[in-house]
Amino acid sequence: MAIKITGSGSYIPTETVTNSDFSKHEFKNEDGTSFPHSNEIVAKKFLEITGIQERRYVNNGLETSDIATIAAKIAIADAGMDPETLDYIIFAHNFGNVTHNKMQSDILPSLATRVKHDLKIKNPNCVAYDILFGCPGWVEGVIQAQAYIRAGMAKKCLVIGAETLSRVVDKYDRDSMIYSDGAGATIIEEVEGTGGILSHKTATYAYDEAYYLHFGPSFNKEINQDDRYIKMEGRKIYEFALNKVPNAMKECLDLSGISIEKINKVLIHQANEKMDEAIIKRFFKLFEAETPEGIMPMSIHKLGNSSVATVPTLYDLLLKGKIENQSIQKGDILLFASVGSGMNINAIVYEM
Amino acid sequence: MAIKITGSGSYIPTETVTNSDFSKHEFKNEDGTSFPHSNEIVAKKFLEITGIQERRYVNNGLETSDIATIAAKIAIADAGMDPETLDYIIFAHNFGNVTHNKMQSDILPSLATRVKHDLKIKNPNCVAYDILFGCPGWVEGVIQAQAYIRAGMAKKCLVIGAETLSRVVDKYDRDSMIYSDGAGATIIEEVEGTGGILSHKTATYAYDEAYYLHFGPSFNKEINQDDRYIKMEGRKIYEFALNKVPNAMKECLDLSGISIEKINKVLIHQANEKMDEAIIKRFFKLFEAETPEGIMPMSIHKLGNSSVATVPTLYDLLLKGKIENQSIQKGDILLFASVGSGMNINAIVYEM
Repeated sequence: MAIKITGSGSYIPTETVTNSDFSKHEFKNEDGTSFPHSNEIVAKKFLEITGIQERRYVNNGLETSDIATIAAKIAIADAGMDPETLDYIIFAHNFGNVTHNKMQSDILPSLATRVKHDLKIKNPNCVAYDILFGCPGWVEGVIQAQAYIRAGMAKKCLVIGAETLSRVVDKYDRDSMIYSDGAGATIIEEVEGTGGILSHKTATYAYDEAYYLHFGPSFNKEINQDDRYIKMEGRKIYEFALNKVPNAMKECLDLSGISIEKINKVLIHQANEKMDEAIIKRFFKLFEAETPEGIMPMSIHKLGNSSVATVPTLYDLLLKGKIENQSIQKGDILLFASVGSGMNINAIVYEM
Repeated sequence: MAIKITGSGSYIPTETVTNSDFSKHEFKNEDGTSFPHSNEIVAKKFLEITGIQERRYVNNGLETSDIATIAAKIAIADAGMDPETLDYIIFAHNFGNVTHNKMQSDILPSLATRVKHDLKIKNPNCVAYDILFGCPGWVEGVIQAQAYIRAGMAKKCLVIGAETLSRVVDKYDRDSMIYSDGAGATIIEEVEGTGGILSHKTATYAYDEAYYLHFGPSFNKEINQDDRYIKMEGRKIYEFALNKVPNAMKECLDLSGISIEKINKVLIHQANEKMDEAIIKRFFKLFEAETPEGIMPMSIHKLGNSSVATVPTLYDLLLKGKIENQSIQKGDILLFASVGSGMNINAIVYEM
């Protein structure tokens, strides 16, 4: 028995926002003082560090659960399955549905319930719930799905990661340039044969790190300071990720019994290109190995950081030949890895 | 091997709000028209149907994750365990932290991370995440915990249900009288011996029922109609619950192999006394049995409906001899059952 991804889908929002689209934004420091550099310099430095040239925003009429449903429909069709046979719908997000130009999150009912409703699934035995687990939410949803399968509680699960970060950004905060919208969905299924999920590893660092990513007030002190936006302590997160993620990836790989040379691709959360490059370099260094050329496919340049959606979207694009000069195929060993709010880290070793 | 509740704790908020405290509220119909009856008549009818005499609200300075931490500390002490040995913290809620007099939910970071932080747990292998699953969230968290234990992924899990519904009520809506605040926490653990969780059943009805409980505008049309509050279609929920919950409970009992006569107590979500009585009557009728006197301990009269918190709080109060004329002891068979937003239903047969 193997636990495999038998279908995938993603939704790439249609509104492209380039770095120069931020040129008229009035960026501020946390203390409300104005930024010392011109926006051109900000954008140049931003591009160098993050690799992000463009990001995608959803149309005003769409919400997180809407784009999740689109991705889910594609994943279900891709798996060639009857949605009525799903045992679980696990939906990872971090802000719920936030309507355009509104501040309130809407998480009642759960977004998983909304997707189930929109997919017109009648079977009551298909259990739909949401998880909040930071950017690693989709990877964690897959780990939960495999737990149910191993425990004999499920055979087929739909695991979704979707987010509309454009609705929770503080436009006076330079970090707003990082965030993006997107949805990825996968069918996780018990199948005959070998391979599939070989190992997993999850960690939550909350002692010092709990609030590295948090909901906080605008840097513009003239904006109602009770209104909250996504905020991050970038420097601390960078150091944390570099210290902790490579070890978690190694622990996961060790558990799988797979040797480092066998890894074909590392699909890592698209948070920041320089950070991802530093993480993977450290990871290979733990095995006294050089980082192989092209082992880490990236979508961040054009898609930005869409939180829970980056990893399943990257997988879907890769599989469907939509990442330039990159491909994956049956038999390949993939290492999924993510890090984000919580602070949570997780990884999966997966044989296609 | 058995999977048992080895510790429990609850937090009963300190502010008591009686039905007569609503006497000056200006209740309206959904269409904004004034209520035809006096508040005295409303309160009398309300009491007859729901059984609620009082409910509890948290102090202005407290948030959902704060009261969850208090309940969690008691549960950990009750289990006599080292919190560093926890494998999971699973936190069920439906609105996140909502600060007094604010509209925005705060779910970044997850409330489970906040509890882990407040408990000062350093062990990164203790995975902390939130689930959104309506009122049945705590029962579902227990089902998830047992999945991890059965799959060999965990030995000890902290499962929390906590909510501050007082922060999301529309005071122009009569249904606001139902809702309450509270927190319940339990340690779910793999132990030697027999008993513990014998079976479970979960269902999500989203085709017609997804929005029976939802976030909607105030019944007072002069209030900003973009602001959202907890709203329910009471009549539809009542009929749905009566039609579906007894069968789910029966299915769960059948799976356990326990006969109906062996049930010592039914711990059902404290939504509405008349509804709960009708559900349990139908449940016993499915076995052609009379409902035994005193089989359904109730806390709703004094505590109202605190969503995810009702079932773990009721369990904790019962175990600690705080429900009048009611007690439970080792060897007893308990049937946990819940119903709520999603619309989700679940049940667990448990041998103490």
